[in-house]
Amino acid sequence: MSRTVRVAVLGAGRIGKRHARTLAGQTPNAELVAIADANEQTARDIAADLKIDTWTTDSATLIGDPNVDAVVIASSTDSHAPLIIAAAEAGKDIFCEKPIALDLVTTDRAITAVEKAGVRLQVGFNRRYDKGYRRAKADIVSGRIGTIESIRDTMRDPAPPPRSYVAISGGLFRDMAIHDFDCVRWLAASEPVEISAMAACLVDPMFAELGDVDTSIVSVRFESGALAVIDNSRRSGFGYDVRTEIFGSEGALFVGFHRDTPVTALTGSGVSTDHVYFFLERFDQAYVDEIRDFVDVIVSGRPPSVSGADGRAALAMAYAAEASVRERRPIELAQFARGGS
Amino acid sequence: MSRTVRVAVLGAGRIGKRHARTLAGQTPNAELVAIADANEQTARDIAADLKIDTWTTDSATLIGDPNVDAVVIASSTDSHAPLIIAAAEAGKDIFCEKPIALDLVTTDRAITAVEKAGVRLQVGFNRRYDKGYRRAKADIVSGRIGTIESIRDTMRDPAPPPRSYVAISGGLFRDMAIHDFDCVRWLAASEPVEISAMAACLVDPMFAELGDVDTSIVSVRFESGALAVIDNSRRSGFGYDVRTEIFGSEGALFVGFHRDTPVTALTGSGVSTDHVYFFLERFDQAYVDEIRDFVDVIVSGRPPSVSGADGRAALAMAYAAEASVRERRPIELAQFARGGS
Amino acid sequence: MSRTVRVAVLGAGRIGKRHARTLAGQTPNAELVAIADANEQTARDIAADLKIDTWTTDSATLIGDPNVDAVVIASSTDSHAPLIIAAAEAGKDIFCEKPIALDLVTTDRAITAVEKAGVRLQVGFNRRYDKGYRRAKADIVSGRIGTIESIRDTMRDPAPPPRSYVAISGGLFRDMAIHDFDCVRWLAASEPVEISAMAACLVDPMFAELGDVDTSIVSVRFESGALAVIDNSRRSGFGYDVRTEIFGSEGALFVGFHRDTPVTALTGSGVSTDHVYFFLERFDQAYVDEIRDFVDVIVSGRPPSVSGADGRAALAMAYAAEASVRERRPIELAQFARGGS
Amino acid sequence: MSRTVRVAVLGAGRIGKRHARTLAGQTPNAELVAIADANEQTARDIAADLKIDTWTTDSATLIGDPNVDAVVIASSTDSHAPLIIAAAEAGKDIFCEKPIALDLVTTDRAITAVEKAGVRLQVGFNRRYDKGYRRAKADIVSGRIGTIESIRDTMRDPAPPPRSYVAISGGLFRDMAIHDFDCVRWLAASEPVEISAMAACLVDPMFAELGDVDTSIVSVRFESGALAVIDNSRRSGFGYDVRTEIFGSEGALFVGFHRDTPVTALTGSGVSTDHVYFFLERFDQAYVDEIRDFVDVIVSGRPPSVSGADGRAALAMAYAAEASVRERRPIELAQFARGGS
Repeated sequence: MSRTVRVAVLGAGRIGKRHARTLAGQTPNAELVAIADANEQTARDIAADLKIDTWTTDSATLIGDPNVDAVVIASSTDSHAPLIIAAAEAGKDIFCEKPIALDLVTTDRAITAVEKAGVRLQVGFNRRYDKGYRRAKADIVSGRIGTIESIRDTMRDPAPPPRSYVAISGGLFRDMAIHDFDCVRWLAASEPVEISAMAACLVDPMFAELGDVDTSIVSVRFESGALAVIDNSRRSGFGYDVRTEIFGSEGALFVGFHRDTPVTALTGSGVSTDHVYFFLERFDQAYVDEIRDFVDVIVSGRPPSVSGADGRAALAMAYAAEASVRERRPIELAQFARGGS
Repeated sequence: MSRTVRVAVLGAGRIGKRHARTLAGQTPNAELVAIADANEQTARDIAADLKIDTWTTDSATLIGDPNVDAVVIASSTDSHAPLIIAAAEAGKDIFCEKPIALDLVTTDRAITAVEKAGVRLQVGFNRRYDKGYRRAKADIVSGRIGTIESIRDTMRDPAPPPRSYVAISGGLFRDMAIHDFDCVRWLAASEPVEISAMAACLVDPMFAELGDVDTSIVSVRFESGALAVIDNSRRSGFGYDVRTEIFGSEGALFVGFHRDTPVTALTGSGVSTDHVYFFLERFDQAYVDEIRDFVDVIVSGRPPSVSGADGRAALAMAYAAEASVRERRPIELAQFARGGS
Repeated sequence: MSRTVRVAVLGAGRIGKRHARTLAGQTPNAELVAIADANEQTARDIAADLKIDTWTTDSATLIGDPNVDAVVIASSTDSHAPLIIAAAEAGKDIFCEKPIALDLVTTDRAITAVEKAGVRLQVGFNRRYDKGYRRAKADIVSGRIGTIESIRDTMRDPAPPPRSYVAISGGLFRDMAIHDFDCVRWLAASEPVEISAMAACLVDPMFAELGDVDTSIVSVRFESGALAVIDNSRRSGFGYDVRTEIFGSEGALFVGFHRDTPVTALTGSGVSTDHVYFFLERFDQAYVDEIRDFVDVIVSGRPPSVSGADGRAALAMAYAAEASVRERRPIELAQFARGGS
Repeated sequence: MSRTVRVAVLGAGRIGKRHARTLAGQTPNAELVAIADANEQTARDIAADLKIDTWTTDSATLIGDPNVDAVVIASSTDSHAPLIIAAAEAGKDIFCEKPIALDLVTTDRAITAVEKAGVRLQVGFNRRYDKGYRRAKADIVSGRIGTIESIRDTMRDPAPPPRSYVAISGGLFRDMAIHDFDCVRWLAASEPVEISAMAACLVDPMFAELGDVDTSIVSVRFESGALAVIDNSRRSGFGYDVRTEIFGSEGALFVGFHRDTPVTALTGSGVSTDHVYFFLERFDQAYVDEIRDFVDVIVSGRPPSVSGADGRAALAMAYAAEASVRERRPIELAQFARGGS
């Protein structure tokens, strides 16, 4: 007998809308019952569009609503932890867009609330739901390439975000590289023990003005002995670029692609293809799949695929990368362990 | 001001279900109001799943229902033409899976009914809605590769269909190559004037037993002078294979791909990737887009993108290919013109 | 104990020079002993360049020279057969650029002379020596893709040759498609029994003025039942294009590539690579390997890899394609059998 | 008026033989006049094979020979510097396989001798002569991708070298990564100012036993501000892997490939290609081109394309990488400047 999970979406920006739409018509065993957004017009419009009766500008109302079983948090980053804590205390299962918070203290507070309440918390690292990355992970687990020895990972945005975004983003490592931190940790299936980073401001002086960097290289040593290297840039000059190469004792796996359509043009000036532009196109299906997985986690009772601890671990790696840039030396991860909290 | 089109889906097999799901939650301006399927259990299940109140085993009821604005016909091929005629007489707009019918006489009868009733008829050639093919068509129209000179097109199924399917399929040319006939005609933007075909039974003697072939090469000469060659096989041995190369005076466009995921495995035995398995995976999004387009055609009042005449033209090409194989000579298309009917 | 084969090159045009260079420094067991070219300056220059003492404008002298064991014929096509006959009568082994002659009667005369003299004749179909095609052939022979069912082959030149070349070329089928005829026959490992062709003049009216075509599609049925389709164009608009797809009962092999260098450029306008320009670049190594193989054939005493009969068979296919275009019907190869001559 | 350069090859191992063959028959304006190898049989055989009269086991004889204009040094690494010094003092132009020496002091001594003598010294970094890398360099110089911001470079050997080789190799950084150091420095067209490295022994405990590592990541900061990351492994598990990605303000260039032949096999288990096995196959043509370039440098009088200073700079980067691994901190290159030594 299947059960229907009644879900409220908190925050109806670009990603929140996507999740609402997924819950409304594309997720078995789920019902979208309510929408909250700070902007009244936004909340009303999306509710009308998806034929949902309940909308509000106040997330707290929905968290307290007994007709809501679970919440999907897609509001601004600074509201993530307070909403997690409130939802946990109200006994709701929680899907939260990354990051839980931009600092470890707040993150730990949210995780502690979740643990105390015994609810489920799943963090939205989209890459874990990408068909390509899932296949690579399955291949690794199956032993196809032997023991993991090193990982090369890159992510580049097509163009820098606006200044207003950068100012509150938490910086390159916490905002952008955090996806890569989670990715290499997940693929390596081992905890990072040491991080060394080099960074620069090459793309736009704006980043330096805001105390940020726009280009970086991060080396990671894992408990297993494996090494990883991640390089990021806020501007590729050609499109969105997410690729990962995993090298093992028996072979390697490369994940990623550049093409948006399967069309190749051959003319006198050479052979050319188009390029996938940005993350919404690239991870379109992953956004659907992560929400479906969250609902399935609740229905089936299994633990979340991407836990609060996973979100915390990636943030700790960002802390270490920042420290390494600041102190110009390799940093051990141990000092960012949760132990103390 | 947007209008909502109330649609009934007639036939809830593999494709019918797909269309019903698209109409239920993924198509702006559309409402799925009813489902018909000859199998009661099937009709009831899909209606429950999509929360549709009205279901029936009798398509005629829905065609007569004043709450239905348009029908999507996805039932068995032999029912297409009768349903088109009935729906046309009832003043409903019609989306019909290819083919309209397996013979020209019946096809013409259906088209005549549509014309008399002044309703819209759109035929489901999925390739026209594929992102890759659409981009190629747009590139051609833009003049990127100059004047079209020749087209190489191939389609191969991963494995032969069951005997029961083959027996009533209408044969390789009407059932399978018909997609390619429509495709090259659409890309060439010119009418075919001559067809020459060579065919064989190499994959499975079953085809010969049923008076069919499983491997073929069809050459086409267009009014514009351009040539096309289409080759088909009922079994590729590796997966689904649909690719088209268009050569113009200024360059070429290649459409198609083999990969299902963007993962490349490199091991001691070489470099390898997976392969897209079958048409439902390959054209998944195209199935969504063709239904959305149909709804948009109705709402906007523009003519259908793929008309009954297009469906007829592809069938005439199949007739010519069959005649060429039978008579071992090139066949002129003129003899299959609609004029006489 | 290794033996040194003393070779004279007859004809020092583009290809002749290439062969001379290969023999001079890159072929074990071979010594380039003499060069002939109708143009005195050409002969003298290449001899000086390669430090060869003997050069002449008269090939006959070299054919009669007892210090010459074998000849490489790379002079104009109309001289091929007379030189083969003279060399055969003088007891020399012969490597001859394709074609032996532009007509079957002359071809048969040359082959008969070779047979009577008991010398070796090897024909220069460069594709047989290409690393890619050789690998594909080996894979086929190993059974990797099961029984061959169909072959798709294409060759396109970057731009039409000059009028003077076209006028004496023998036409598209004997001059250009002949490479494809040899290729599909070799890969299918079966004799062609029926050919059907469609052709047009789309690239340049010059071809029609000279009674030739510039675009064609040729369908072939082999004794084994397998089908092949070959399409050619005198102008691709982007570069040299030679590719072959071989489909078997267990899978497929694709041979060919477009890139000249392994560089990919990714910019705001997409992803692009360069393109191999013409056959000398594409088959550079194959030209070396075919000459090395010829020398090895002589030294080892094994039969030539590409015989006079192979050259004749490809020409017979060209005859059949021409007849099919002319008579607008499929043509059986039997009528071009050597028997009668 | 062209001049012939008379060259002696010192050391006839794998690479020495390759160079000898290139000089014997494939290099305009060059004459191979003598061969030296410590092993008498080796020297005699290669001389016989290439029809060279002069061979010896004593390189000194050839360096002193007035009939020798230039030497190609391809003997064991420890002999490079002494031979350079002797050849310089004898006034010969010098091509030397990388590295000049395994330490900076000896390297500087050799460079000083060359400078004092006013002869030319060219160092054999094969990648600089690879068609792909040359094209990328030309594209960078032309401004196609704007200002260089970051470079990702990787090199992996198919399998570890034997213990005997490793023992005297100078270690991963001086022996293997040195190619990458030269490559990124050349492409960045800027001097490195800071290096940070992480390394491990993951492939084979032998490396650790010999005080070496087998897996490494090196981050480089250039004077221009650009960053580079290099990762190396002594074993890829699939074949030889050399690839470089260069990211600029206007786009990116990717250099490298995996395939040995242009054959793709498609079977029920996926799509697969072969893989280039090792550096001799991958850089085959580059080995020819670097020798031709050396001869052309002498004939034309222009400065060497890859100078002694280039060889030294790459070695200094290896020193810095080693220091970074040892001291676990980023290392400034300034301390390895030649000035002081």
